[in-house]
This record gives sequence, structure tokens and C-alpha cells, in this order.
Amino acid sequence: MLRYKALLQQIEDFIAQQGYEQGPNKLYEPIKYIMGLGGKRMRPVSVLLANEMFDGKLDTALPVAYAMELFHNFTLVHDDIMDEATMRRGKETVHQKYDVTTGILSGDVMLIYVYRYFEHLPPALFQEAIKLLNDTGIKVCEGQQYDIDFETQSAVSEGKYFTMIEYKTAVLLACCLQIGALIAGAEKKDAVSLYRFGIHTGTAFQLMDDWLDTFGDEAAFGKTIGGDILQGKQTYLLIKAKELANYEDKAFLNGYLNDNAYTDNEKVTQVTQIMRKYQVDEMARQLMESRHQQALQQLEGIAVSAEKKQPLIDMANQLLQRTV
Amino acid sequence: MLRYKALLQQIEDFIAQQGYEQGPNKLYEPIKYIMGLGGKRMRPVSVLLANEMFDGKLDTALPVAYAMELFHNFTLVHDDIMDEATMRRGKETVHQKYDVTTGILSGDVMLIYVYRYFEHLPPALFQEAIKLLNDTGIKVCEGQQYDIDFETQSAVSEGKYFTMIEYKTAVLLACCLQIGALIAGAEKKDAVSLYRFGIHTGTAFQLMDDWLDTFGDEAAFGKTIGGDILQGKQTYLLIKAKELANYEDKAFLNGYLNDNAYTDNEKVTQVTQIMRKYQVDEMARQLMESRHQQALQQLEGIAVSAEKKQPLIDMANQLLQRTV
Repeated sequence: MLRYKALLQQIEDFIAQQGYEQGPNKLYEPIKYIMGLGGKRMRPVSVLLANEMFDGKLDTALPVAYAMELFHNFTLVHDDIMDEATMRRGKETVHQKYDVTTGILSGDVMLIYVYRYFEHLPPALFQEAIKLLNDTGIKVCEGQQYDIDFETQSAVSEGKYFTMIEYKTAVLLACCLQIGALIAGAEKKDAVSLYRFGIHTGTAFQLMDDWLDTFGDEAAFGKTIGGDILQGKQTYLLIKAKELANYEDKAFLNGYLNDNAYTDNEKVTQVTQIMRKYQVDEMARQLMESRHQQALQQLEGIAVSAEKKQPLIDMANQLLQRTV
Repeated sequence: MLRYKALLQQIEDFIAQQGYEQGPNKLYEPIKYIMGLGGKRMRPVSVLLANEMFDGKLDTALPVAYAMELFHNFTLVHDDIMDEATMRRGKETVHQKYDVTTGILSGDVMLIYVYRYFEHLPPALFQEAIKLLNDTGIKVCEGQQYDIDFETQSAVSEGKYFTMIEYKTAVLLACCLQIGALIAGAEKKDAVSLYRFGIHTGTAFQLMDDWLDTFGDEAAFGKTIGGDILQGKQTYLLIKAKELANYEDKAFLNGYLNDNAYTDNEKVTQVTQIMRKYQVDEMARQLMESRHQQALQQLEGIAVSAEKKQPLIDMANQLLQRTV
């Protein structure tokens, strides 16, 4: 992971250099705040890793990498308002620290700045990249809407669930990889292979996140186990358990949320037991592993040296190793 | 105004054709709702008028014109949440009819669709137009922030006020005109003249809107007179009155908002009298007239026939005639 760490440092330096000194402070201070909260920076690093794979210039790729992290943070700021979330990465969310108006307006200007950070690209490349960004951005919003819709739906199909996580999570990672390759001058087919690598990796990552929320180790995961179960969140685990359960178990899964006869701990324990009974935990792990392998297969057809591919392989392994 | 009306019909037809049938209905229904509420369509018609002035193709310009109306409506949806407004054009605002989450998310996807409706332009023109759109969008957000900042500032300078209305209102009209000219293949200098025409017209329009709110005819204006005064809104009229007023009048202007000794009617009457006393109503009208003339002067240097310029002259006259 040496390459990831080196590029992460480049991203952090670039973020620290963006001053937003022009214009009203109340609009721009929240951008510096949220962008300064850290995180894995999976998306911008992916832009740089894909760019390096095809010998692209770092100076051209850095503003684009930054833009993709800005896009991700724009969605976080607005999603946190919608979810009424007060904390993010151990700090106050933007609308909690400032107010909802600030959260909406700073988020809006962040989205416009995303497009601005592409402006240095030559015209044909600029247009190709913006088209991909538009497609991706629209899917991310649609994914968020599907996720909201799921909250009031008792039965969600497996297919709809996978569309939702693909749109809400995977397409942005995929877009980062494809754009990183494109601006390095990669052939379209190779850039598309990286897009697919991103779809599979992102999907596996989301499956793992759901798995960890129920079956993870509390200390290692850094969150309380069972949060999804207590929220009744439509994860692969719950959807599949409802599909496979017998009459009695299904009735429990459909009714536990509003049943005061059980404590929260009992609810988590019972739902987890039902999931294990029908082996949906194992199914989820197999799906993750299968998606991980499909991701790696996408790299095989790309005509660059094994050495050039290694940093992306390392990244996928690192992102998905939390399951072990 | 024959040309305006004909082009307005083209816009309305184009709006009616946009189905947004793909994707989640809850995300797209609000877009069709707000875009269907009507209005003057000043911005998209300006794109088409500028495009016609330089013999551009309607088919190329229509999606761009639509995009600019979409941008305007995106700002309305989000501003209405920030202002907690319940009504717009005699109908419920989006967040009132649906909810705040829907307002935020539909607004976000509208902004991305704005960029998508430019995608048919050839690469160099696409990039030039998107750069202008980015500049404009950022200014519109900054203008909204300045306007919010003014609410908690007791003294706003005339200069800051004009920056605020230029950013919040005029730049978008100016951008529409410049982009309409650019996509018709106009020379850069002519496109910039139209931009300036838009800045002056938009500024005069906003001055007039403020003037009408205090000195207009209630029946013709369609709103209650004195709303700005009762909100303590920092308009040119109030800023200038505070600047010119003697000690006693200034004390009243600074204190009336939270003074329970006066009824709303008395507040409106007193503030209006002070404004008349220092002739700020007349100053505002002169400024409007001066900006109107400066707008028309911008057209003089453009090397197209007088006949080609007439529809834009008519539009400015029509927009600003409400003062008479």
C-alpha cells in the first residue's frame, strides 16, 4: 500500500491548499471544514491510481481527483441533512455545526465547484469526462432516492437492492477510475474495464459494510453492531433472510421493528440468529468474494505490466480485507 | 413582443416534452411540478432571443434554454427551503407539497441535469459554455449567501447591495444572453456585450422589484405593498434612506422592526414617508432608468441590423415598463 499512502498525501496537500478566499466566508468555511475531516479518500486516490496505471501526469489528475472527493462530500453534506445526522467521522455534521441553510447552500456551491475543477482539461476530454460525471451524479441522486424509498417499503427485491447500492456507492468509485484512466490517455476499452472494476469493488465494499454492521467485531468496526437491524434497514442480509425464512421467522422479521415485547438487544440477537439459520451471512460473504474476483478479472485484459496493476489490486484487497 | 411570445411557446412545448420517465418517480415528479408552474420564462427566452440575433439554430439552443430555466428553478426550490416559503406562483413550494428531503434531492439532480442539457454542443463550445455556467452558478450561490448575511447586518453598503443583486439576479440573465449568442457562433466581443446588456437589465429589474414592493400599486403588483419594509429587507431604498437620514429618522429606521409601539401599517407608512423625504424613491427610479439606458447602449456596438436587435430592446422595455 505504499503507492496508496503516497498518493493520499498528495490529495491531503492539495485539499489543504484550496483556500476559497474569494467570496462570502459563511459559504466557504463549511467546505474547508468537511473536506478537512479526513477519511480513506478512496475516490480521489482511485483517480490518481488509474491515472498512474496509464502514465498520466499527476498535475492534470490532481484537480480532478480533488473534484471527485468534493462531489462525495457534497453528497455527505446533503445526505446528513436528509438523515438528520448530527455526527460524521467523530465530528459535527455541517448542518449541525452551522445550520440547514448553510448545509444546503454550501453543498450546492460544492457541486458547481466539482465541474470547475475539470476546466483545465482539453475540450474533447473535458466533454467526455463531464458526460461521465453527469451520468454518475444522476445515478448517485437516484440511488439516494431508492434508499429513501426503501424505508417505507416492506418488501424490497434483491435486484432493486443491488441497483440501489450500485447507484449510491459503486458508480462514483467506478467513475473515478474511468476518469483517471481517460485523462491519462488510456484507450476507451481499458477505461471501461476500470469502470467495471470499480462497480464490482464498490458493490463488494457496500456488501461488506452491511455484513460488518451485523456480524462484525464491535471494536474493529468502530460502530455499534446491529444499528441496521434496529433501523430496519433494507440490507442484502435482511432482504435475503425474508426471502428464505419460514412463515414464523418471516412474521418476526416483518414485525420486530414496532414490537415492544422485545428489547433492542433481543431484537438484534433474534434477527441475527434468523440470518445465520438461513446462512445469509455466508451468502453475503460469498457474494463479496465473487464480486472481488470479478473486479480483479477486469484488470486482466488491460495491456499494461503486472507491476502497473498491482496498486489497484492492493487497494481492492485492502478495502475488502475488513471482512476477515 | 411577438417574438418573445413565439419563443415562449417553444419553451413551454419543450418543457412539456421532458418526461424524466427513467428512475424514481419521487425524484422527478417535483421537477415536472415546479417547471410546470409557468412564469415569464425570461431566462430561457433570452437564450433564444440572443441566439436568433446571430442566426443560430433553434434546435441547438432549445435544450440550453431549457437548462437555464432548470437552473433558475433549482435555485427557487432550494431558496424556498432556506426561506421556509410555503407558496410560489400561487401554488405550494416543492418542500411544502412533498418534504424537505425531496426538495433538497430533486434540486440537486436538477442542477446536474442543467449540465446534461449542454452535452449536445460541440466540445470547444461545450467547454466555453460550461465555464460561463460555472462562473455564473458560483456567483448565484454567493449572491444568495450575501443576501442571507444582510439579514443580520444593521448596515449594508450600497456597493455590497449592488454586488448582491448582480450575483443573485443579474448574472444569470447575462449568462443566458451570452450563451445564446455563443452557441449561434457570435464573436466573443458581441457575446460579452450581450452579457453586459443582461447585467444592466437584470440590475434595473431588481431595483424595480424593490421599488414596486414599497411604492407600487397593490393591484397591479400582485403582492402586498410594504412586505420588504416589514421584513427589514436591505433594499437600495432602505440602505440609501439610512445613509441620508438625519439623526432622528435614522434612529427610527434602525429601530422600527422590533418596536411594538407601532402597528405594521404605521411602520410601512412612516418608513415610506422617510424614503420620500430624502427622495430615495426618485433616486431609485433614476438609477433604473440609467441602467436601462446602459443596457441599450451595449447593443449599439453589435454589427447586426436594427431589426435583429429589436426583440431584445422590446424585452428590456417590457420587463422594465412595470415602473410606469
